[in-house]
Order: sequence, then C-alpha cells, then structure tokens
Amino acid sequence: MQMLDLVHRRRREGRDTIMLCAGQPATGAPASALAAAGDELHASALGYTEVIGDRDLRETVAAWHSETYGVDTAAEKVVITTGSSGGFVAAFLATLDHGDVVALSCPGYPAYRNILGSLGARVVDLVCDETTRFQPTADMLEALPAQDRPKAVIVTSPGNPSGTIIDPAELERIAKWCEDNGAVLISDEDYHGMSFGRPLATARQFSDRAIVVGTLSKYFSMTGWRVGWLILPDELITPVENLQASLALCAPAISQIAGRAAFSPEARAELDTHVERYRAARRVLLHELPKIGFTRFAEPDGGLYLWLDVSHVTDDSEAWCHELVEEIGVAFAPGVDFDPVNGHKWVRLSLCAPESETREACRRLGEYVSAR
Amino acid sequence: MQMLDLVHRRRREGRDTIMLCAGQPATGAPASALAAAGDELHASALGYTEVIGDRDLRETVAAWHSETYGVDTAAEKVVITTGSSGGFVAAFLATLDHGDVVALSCPGYPAYRNILGSLGARVVDLVCDETTRFQPTADMLEALPAQDRPKAVIVTSPGNPSGTIIDPAELERIAKWCEDNGAVLISDEDYHGMSFGRPLATARQFSDRAIVVGTLSKYFSMTGWRVGWLILPDELITPVENLQASLALCAPAISQIAGRAAFSPEARAELDTHVERYRAARRVLLHELPKIGFTRFAEPDGGLYLWLDVSHVTDDSEAWCHELVEEIGVAFAPGVDFDPVNGHKWVRLSLCAPESETREACRRLGEYVSAR
Repeated sequence: MQMLDLVHRRRREGRDTIMLCAGQPATGAPASALAAAGDELHASALGYTEVIGDRDLRETVAAWHSETYGVDTAAEKVVITTGSSGGFVAAFLATLDHGDVVALSCPGYPAYRNILGSLGARVVDLVCDETTRFQPTADMLEALPAQDRPKAVIVTSPGNPSGTIIDPAELERIAKWCEDNGAVLISDEDYHGMSFGRPLATARQFSDRAIVVGTLSKYFSMTGWRVGWLILPDELITPVENLQASLALCAPAISQIAGRAAFSPEARAELDTHVERYRAARRVLLHELPKIGFTRFAEPDGGLYLWLDVSHVTDDSEAWCHELVEEIGVAFAPGVDFDPVNGHKWVRLSLCAPESETREACRRLGEYVSAR
Repeated sequence: MQMLDLVHRRRREGRDTIMLCAGQPATGAPASALAAAGDELHASALGYTEVIGDRDLRETVAAWHSETYGVDTAAEKVVITTGSSGGFVAAFLATLDHGDVVALSCPGYPAYRNILGSLGARVVDLVCDETTRFQPTADMLEALPAQDRPKAVIVTSPGNPSGTIIDPAELERIAKWCEDNGAVLISDEDYHGMSFGRPLATARQFSDRAIVVGTLSKYFSMTGWRVGWLILPDELITPVENLQASLALCAPAISQIAGRAAFSPEARAELDTHVERYRAARRVLLHELPKIGFTRFAEPDGGLYLWLDVSHVTDDSEAWCHELVEEIGVAFAPGVDFDPVNGHKWVRLSLCAPESETREACRRLGEYVSAR
C-alpha cells in the first residue's frame, strides 16, 4: 500500500498520476447503493449492527452465493466483516494456534503473510509459475515434507497478483486434499464476479468445511466502504462471532445498508459494465506490453491484475516502481510485496484504470524503457 | 455483546425493550456529520483512503487533542483506525509478543482480555473496588510479583464498566511507573468528552511514550460508523502503519469524511447536549436505585455506565439479566463479561437511554424485585 499512499500524496500536491498500483475500481459504488446510503443517513441512528452483521445483508449474500454457484449457502453461515481484511484476521484467529503452518501461493497477496506473521503462524510457500498458471495445486500440497504439512491452506482465484483462475477440477482436488489431511481450506473469493471467460467455482461446491472469504471492494466497486464476509463451516460460526465481538464489534452500519443494495439487478447491470472496462484494459495491456518488450506475464483470466516480469529492465522492481512514478507519473505495485524471493523481478499492474489511461501508461513506459 | 444482539432480535420481532446494556448513544451522528456524509456520497468514488487515515481527519483529531488537553499532539502521531477496536488490535500487535504480560483493571472492558487471549498474551488482573474508586493505581503495579511485571498496562478513564475517572495525579504516577519499568501505557480514552465534574487528563500530559486510544463512537455519537484513532509515540508510527496495511487497509472512507465534521463547533454544541442527557440518566439512577434496594455501586464520574452490585438478588447475574429481558423487557449487561471472578454479582447499566426510559426501567425493576 505504500505505493498507493505515494499516489495519494502526489495527487494532494496536484501532481497527477496514472494509478495502476491498486486493486481499486476507479468507479464508485453502484447508484442504488449510494441511494440506499443517502436514504439511511436520516432514517436511523446508525448504531452498532448485530456483531455478525445486518440480518438482511447476510440473507442477501447467502442468496447471491447460493444462486451464483448452485450451492446451498444459508444466511446463518454468513458473518459480515469489515472488509475481507477483517475476515482474514477473524478466520486466522479462529482456526490457528501460535506456530501453526499455513500454506499459500507465492506470489500471493502480502497481507496473508503479514497478518500470519504478526499472529505467530508459520508460512510455507507454494511456489507458482507458468507451469501451473501461477496457481497452487493439490500435487504441491501432497509434495510438502511432513514438518510443513499445513493446518490451513489459502487459495486466491482469480489470483492476486496473478489474475489467473484455478480450474474447478483442480480446486476440487485441493479441497479434497484439505479434507483428507485435516487442513482448513480458506478460499479467498474476493475477485469473484470478474472472469474474462474461464469458469469460476466457489470452494463450497466441493467442501462444506472450507471457509469462503468475500468482499464488496472488488466486483461490487465499494472499496472504501469496508464490507466483506466469511461463509463458515458450522463449527466456526460461534467462535468467529465471539472473536468479532471483541475484534470489531460490527462492520460499518451505513456500508452494510448500502452494500445490500449493491446486489440488486440494477446494481449488477451497472457493475457488469465495469467488468467490460477491466476486459478492455486487459486487452490494451496484452496488446501493448509485448510491443514494448515486456513479453513474460501471467495472462489474467479474471480479477483486476496482470503480473509482469520486468527482469530485463531492472533487478530491483521496488526502486524501479518509485523511479517510474517520479519520471513518468505511472504507478505499478512492486513485486517484492507479493513474492519475497523473486518479486524483485516482477511488478503487478492493475486493470482498474480507464482504457485511455492504461494505453497512455503503456506509451510512457515504452518511451521510457526505449530511451535508456 | 450477546445481550445487545438479543435486544436487536427482540426489536426485529416487534418486542420493544429498554436497552441499558450497550454503551451506545441513542442519538445519531451530529447533523453536520450527516450533512458531510450526504455531500460526499456523490463527490468522490469513496475508495481506499491512506492506510493511516484521511490527512484532514488526522489533523482535526490532532488539533482537537492538543487544544482540549493543552498538549502538543502532531497529526503525524495520529493513525485513524476502524473504531477503537481496530486500534487495540493494532496497538497490541505492535507492542506485544506471544506470552507477554499485560496488566489491566478488573472489572474492565472484556474485549481487552479477549483480544489479548486470542493473541497469546497473558493478562494480569489489577483487582479494583471502592477503595480505589474501581480504578487501578501505581501502587497496585508496584505490588505485582516479579513474574507478573507487565510489558503493557491498560487504563480506561472514565472506566468501563465503572464510569469512574482516574485522578490526574494518579494517572501521572501510573505513567511514570510505566516509563520507569519499561511498560507501554495504553490509555483507553474512548469515554473522554464526558465528565460530570471531575477533571479528565490524557495520558499524553504525563508521558510521550503512552499510546492514547480514542473513538467517534461515544462522545461523538457515531458508534456504527466505526472510526477511532491511536495517538502513538514516534517509534510506533511506522510499525502500526505497516500492520494496518495488512490488518485493515483503511477505516471506512465515508465515516472518516463524516467524522471530520463531528469536531466542528456546531457539532460539539449538539454533542454537549447529549452529555446532559447522560447526566440526567445518571441522576435518575443515583436517586432511584437505592430506593429499590440497590445501594452498592460505582458512582459514575463520567462516561456512559454505572456498575451495580446485585448480589442480594442473584448470584448469577448472567441468568438474571436474561430473566429481566424476558420478564420486564429491560436489558442490562451481565457483570461476568467484565469481571471473570466477581462479575456474577454485578451488572453494568448504561446512561444512554432517554431519562424517561431509564426511570421506567427502574420502576419495572423495583416492581420485579419486590414481588419476589
């Protein structure tokens, strides 16, 4: 996030910057969500909601999840959290003890690693590259040595930073491996709703024991509202409720009211047009990057990112990203945040900027690298 | 919070209940905060703010804190959190390792104990009663055996559940003891702004090393908006920022915008009238409770609570509270949440209900206990 803060600071200083560093839709909440928030401002005192979340929102999430994936997800299993960030903290505390092992993909979302580290869990990397489309497999889990057998496994599909989708059959194998080996599968489905063609499965299609994590921040275009959810196996509902009563009290009330309206048919129609923007930005990147010499990347199947090898221009992608912001006003996310081993050769690009800005970023980048 | 959820469920079912169980103002956000939120809905995309919070809000909190207490609190020291709940989690993770000892008052706010337990810290109770007006002292810290010397000390003034204020001179002694003994003082100042007469000091008057925790939920009457802050010693700013980038990303954007407006002179005038309501509810309780046989309690100096001994009518205050909700539609918070040892003989009453409801609750309670 440091790059994002840098962009915020530059913009405050009036220095405009093309922001390809954050998984943050440039669009705001859907109109019906804004209308619901506006109505609620004067309709209630907006006090604490129930710890596990507004009942109507829990029912809405459950109905959406059941209908989208053809599964039976009851509202009782849904706990509303303060963004998926709040969901991860609660899920980790509910399932892990100090020193427990957690397996996750590398490259992967840095917050998993950072939160787990701060809680005293031990991370085991599932190193991913082109050979498995930058996603972990059941074979990788099976190949772990005995001392690295995980208590929990985290998968993220569509991936962050990879943008790739785990095939449903492979997700099923991973879910089965977790059940067979007593590991909790934590399926980060924050980027669901955004596929450019591949089928997208929820872990709940394959296991009742999996924890599903979701958010209003990505497809639903409500990042700053800080609402997410956990869909929990029955035995974790009460432990998570008890944790949330101390960790969070509740997710923001007005955001929960607004969020409910984001599932309406009108809102979904609006949100689906955003996915077409991400598709357009993806098309620009896939077309322009090879022309300016960037030929190795994970081709995004969905979600909001493209993971790009920049090793022919730098072996310090963090310094390089800072250089790019300064020199050409284009912000990427340095790969070191996502991959402590090889991330210095990679950067993450976001698909969230408008097509025209994405094209302009490529133009500036091409000019910059060809001039050196 | 289970009692609060029970009230929510009852109200959803149309069974009205006098709610004296929650530290939640019955009032909503001040008008200027609501207006600011309404304006912002269509003014920006409400994406992520800076991890450490909206710059303007940080400056507003810093200016308010400096002016209120005559201290020099720079905006750089202020980190906006998702309620003070989010602040506690970040402060604990930034200062404590697994197994570290934390001293706190008993009775005290249950979330401290629960969060610390889930993080693997060890709680040492500073048992408080009338003799120190239900607040810890430096002498209690000095009397701890060597193996219980704390890495951190938490104080809450005005207290939860006690409502009592630590005298400035004693707070100074506690702050000095912490500095002399290498302990981090965490001063929960969530109930500041609400004194019924006694002077109220911030820990920062006595120590630059103290962590101050604050919130918009209490005096500012914005519980469901989930905004709080930490005021940090310099060496903890970067560690907390790094933690927040993974734990939270940012506090809710619209709540930060609304919150800034809650510090305006017009908002403060509105909020000060709420304090007069709490004072009126306090007056009712201090007058009525002895008349119906409840004679032992902590007399609230400020904040939102009255801590009441109910041992002459029950030795299981949790069961008794559930009974009261069922039988007379009055909800108190059971003492076991606040004191694992003697809490079965105590309950916590809130000063947040309107005076008329507080009076009616006393009437029903008197009728109920006299009929048994």
